[in-house]
Amino acid sequence: MRDIDELTKRIIAFRNARDWKQFHNPKDLALSLVLEAAEVMEHFQWKDKKEMQKYVETNKTDIGEELADVLYWVLLMGNDLEIDVLDALEKKIKKNEEKYPVEKAKGKHNKYTEL
Amino acid sequence: MRDIDELTKRIIAFRNARDWKQFHNPKDLALSLVLEAAEVMEHFQWKDKKEMQKYVETNKTDIGEELADVLYWVLLMGNDLEIDVLDALEKKIKKNEEKYPVEKAKGKHNKYTEL
Amino acid sequence: MRDIDELTKRIIAFRNARDWKQFHNPKDLALSLVLEAAEVMEHFQWKDKKEMQKYVETNKTDIGEELADVLYWVLLMGNDLEIDVLDALEKKIKKNEEKYPVEKAKGKHNKYTEL
Amino acid sequence: MRDIDELTKRIIAFRNARDWKQFHNPKDLALSLVLEAAEVMEHFQWKDKKEMQKYVETNKTDIGEELADVLYWVLLMGNDLEIDVLDALEKKIKKNEEKYPVEKAKGKHNKYTEL
Repeated sequence: MRDIDELTKRIIAFRNARDWKQFHNPKDLALSLVLEAAEVMEHFQWKDKKEMQKYVETNKTDIGEELADVLYWVLLMGNDLEIDVLDALEKKIKKNEEKYPVEKAKGKHNKYTEL
Repeated sequence: MRDIDELTKRIIAFRNARDWKQFHNPKDLALSLVLEAAEVMEHFQWKDKKEMQKYVETNKTDIGEELADVLYWVLLMGNDLEIDVLDALEKKIKKNEEKYPVEKAKGKHNKYTEL
Repeated sequence: MRDIDELTKRIIAFRNARDWKQFHNPKDLALSLVLEAAEVMEHFQWKDKKEMQKYVETNKTDIGEELADVLYWVLLMGNDLEIDVLDALEKKIKKNEEKYPVEKAKGKHNKYTEL
Repeated sequence: MRDIDELTKRIIAFRNARDWKQFHNPKDLALSLVLEAAEVMEHFQWKDKKEMQKYVETNKTDIGEELADVLYWVLLMGNDLEIDVLDALEKKIKKNEEKYPVEKAKGKHNKYTEL
């Protein structure tokens, strides 16, 4: 399934069937988002580039599950806060294209304020 | 634009035009994912439910930008690690439906191991 | 033991005996710090005030272990980066006393830029 | 000042003078702890080892402030939750010495469950 709106509907249906909306205030949703992002990051702790490459090859399912968890909370938050995250992302890309013009940003990892 | 694959392509084109792939190892990508998730969370620090509700109403653009940043790194990581995050999410939802059966999980915020 | 310098020495001795300094670059140390802070936070996910109070009373050892893990990385980073964290904290308190004057900040949770 | 109990007292006095205890539930304290840990981590984003070394040399004050912020919340949480974090750390070190015996753990960054 490649339809984000459809996936969001399924997430909300899953939540509502379990009567979990009562726990879903923005703070706890954001907290969950951070915890899942941290679980993604934990996969790469202490590993150097070679070890990461090898690790990724053999652990795609596990890492994918953690990334899916992050996406889960992004979509649920978007729904509950009535924010169109896809639209926000499209706008953000445009904004970044202006903040980081190719001729200035090429090959540098500086923040736009330091370019 | 509601097409995730199309958005991912634009993110990658943006990155490649700036020659930033050289900095994009899994560890730094995951680190960025966590930092952006933390920025989402910061919006709700110290606020009680009423304050959050009011805050969300008047700060949708800012919160949307942070959520978009999280989604940005999810899509970029999915691309670089060759993980289909949408597919992973669909599988995760199915898995959660089994881990949290409605009759056991309804109205409880316990982890599935404590149901 | 209430002597921070002594505790730091034990942490370093523990690390050196295992020959782990080779993995301890600032990025991975900071990453570990974040992961342990996230584990502290996980204890309070989804809980309201009453549930937290009850939970804290019966889980002091577990929460204490996670807080200890955070302190562990703070002290190790301070050591490796040659930063005197206690001194930095003392200076930070002084700075905060100026940034948040009692008459302006009393009873408000705003950032100093919004007071 | 190298006395942790004394520093904790100053932190609490600072807080009480501003009447901020009302905002200090465990969830928001832990959230603050994570946010400050993330700020430590942000210093090392995208940098390789050489860049980090150079960066640390010239940014000790800034990094020290962020580490101090983390320590601040560790001490405040310990106080409010009535957890002796120094004692917990001493116990944790002992526990780790058993979980990671030198002969097994030397030179490896594996989790104790994978040794």
